[in-house]
Amino acid sequence: MALLVVGSVALDTITTPAGKVEETLGGSAVYFSLGACCFDSVRVVGVVGPDFPVSEKKFMGDRGIDIRGLMTGQGPTFRWEGVYGQEFGDARTIRTELGVFASFQPKLPESYATTPCIFLANIDPALQLDVLDQIVNPRWVAVDTMNLWIDQQREKLMEVLRRVDIVFVNASEARQLSGRRNLFEAAAFILDLGPRFAVIKMGAAGAMIFGGDVPFNLPAYPLDRVVDPTGAGDTFASGMLGYLAGSGRELDFAAMMTGLAYGSVNASFAVGDFGVAMLRTATREIIEERLAYYLSTNQLGVLER
Amino acid sequence: MALLVVGSVALDTITTPAGKVEETLGGSAVYFSLGACCFDSVRVVGVVGPDFPVSEKKFMGDRGIDIRGLMTGQGPTFRWEGVYGQEFGDARTIRTELGVFASFQPKLPESYATTPCIFLANIDPALQLDVLDQIVNPRWVAVDTMNLWIDQQREKLMEVLRRVDIVFVNASEARQLSGRRNLFEAAAFILDLGPRFAVIKMGAAGAMIFGGDVPFNLPAYPLDRVVDPTGAGDTFASGMLGYLAGSGRELDFAAMMTGLAYGSVNASFAVGDFGVAMLRTATREIIEERLAYYLSTNQLGVLER
Repeated sequence: MALLVVGSVALDTITTPAGKVEETLGGSAVYFSLGACCFDSVRVVGVVGPDFPVSEKKFMGDRGIDIRGLMTGQGPTFRWEGVYGQEFGDARTIRTELGVFASFQPKLPESYATTPCIFLANIDPALQLDVLDQIVNPRWVAVDTMNLWIDQQREKLMEVLRRVDIVFVNASEARQLSGRRNLFEAAAFILDLGPRFAVIKMGAAGAMIFGGDVPFNLPAYPLDRVVDPTGAGDTFASGMLGYLAGSGRELDFAAMMTGLAYGSVNASFAVGDFGVAMLRTATREIIEERLAYYLSTNQLGVLER
Repeated sequence: MALLVVGSVALDTITTPAGKVEETLGGSAVYFSLGACCFDSVRVVGVVGPDFPVSEKKFMGDRGIDIRGLMTGQGPTFRWEGVYGQEFGDARTIRTELGVFASFQPKLPESYATTPCIFLANIDPALQLDVLDQIVNPRWVAVDTMNLWIDQQREKLMEVLRRVDIVFVNASEARQLSGRRNLFEAAAFILDLGPRFAVIKMGAAGAMIFGGDVPFNLPAYPLDRVVDPTGAGDTFASGMLGYLAGSGRELDFAAMMTGLAYGSVNASFAVGDFGVAMLRTATREIIEERLAYYLSTNQLGVLER
């Protein structure tokens, strides 16, 4: 089932303890589409400036990503600069130049309107609602958000949450959104707002899904070297949602559990090198190889006692 | 196979965001023996003062724990007071009164010398060596340590590590011991020092075992309410080592993996209430019930794709 993503397309400058890259391909819609295109056909809605490298646009097209929804606006491409400390975790933002992204009005090509699977990456909830209004009868919709919108666009965000099936948040956003410190209570609060499933991302501690009889929790993919956490959350979502769309499974908790494993695997491509470097050459075969390794590091198999 | 623990027996005063308890039964040897006695016969070596409550000594005996090695010294019982903040994690120590523990010289009853399974809880490495010298041909030995000994008794600790099979450390201790930030490198460094297996505890992020073909990693037991993390590490060890001793399995990586699951389950009893409150009434049956729940929260079973 085709999968549509709406989000940012950016040129990132990133410093981590492992080094620095400048003006590298980034943005939530890019990380997501590069991660999800290994599973299914992906359609991107976003905006860049005329300064966006033609080669990168061509690269995305060559990966089989439908970029007819990637508009070119008047002004510079969105640029972001961030620095990570020794502990990685959240980046310190040095510079944000929204450029064409400041006036982004997602306009879906007509052929996109009946896309069955939708990922609303982290953008203004008002724009997320605009997108939902252009979609006809989706199979499922997933959404990501951030502290800024929880704080400043709460009402619009609530409206979004009433209309989606899956919500992705990290632990601090879950607490901020719910006003509860305890993640179990936070998840219950969030599920009451509308979504069937809440995915709480915990960075190096893995991720947890709520919405089934019991929570489901997997550790992060074990990596002996973290290089750059930028895009880890969107790439995590790309593995989970790419799998769900590609398999065509019913959206139930068992499918979400399997999706969680693919999410952890995909996230490892984001953090294992700078920017989208590893995602450029990812294939379903490489993902399946990593999945087999990943499961060998956390699945007990038949428990001998 | 009988399991011997050498460690502290204490009266703890603990403040957490959930409340406060005063002069409650604690200490590494107590948490460990209460957790492990659900699996196998446990022998304790430790010291208390004449002020130690007779009722608590009787309670431990009633739990089937062999307390012939619990000596009564001249002076007050070891007392510790600590405060946990909102994030839990490490306690801030308010007060440490070593009392009889300051001059603790572990002296094993003759009947203990041939105990097959040994846990050297976190005490001075010089005393850990004393204990090892009193043990005849053990099946396996496990050891725990802490930042103080890594810093101040490094040489003695290295001698201990050469003589043990399993080492327990938390992530910060692994980094301190190895001088490596990366936990994979830290684990490789530690295994080079002698132990066959290294267990790195990561608190709410679970624990990881090294020493097999691939690392093995399980998330923490999902708890909707953390009350008091005191003793979590020793109780974690009690589940893993209690299982290994009780099952009589060969010490190999597969057995360690199953042990890790029991460790996570046991740790949940330590953190779910103040002090040893939940451990007082724990049974193997309750542990198996929690294990079944725990596995339902992180084991994918047959992965449908």
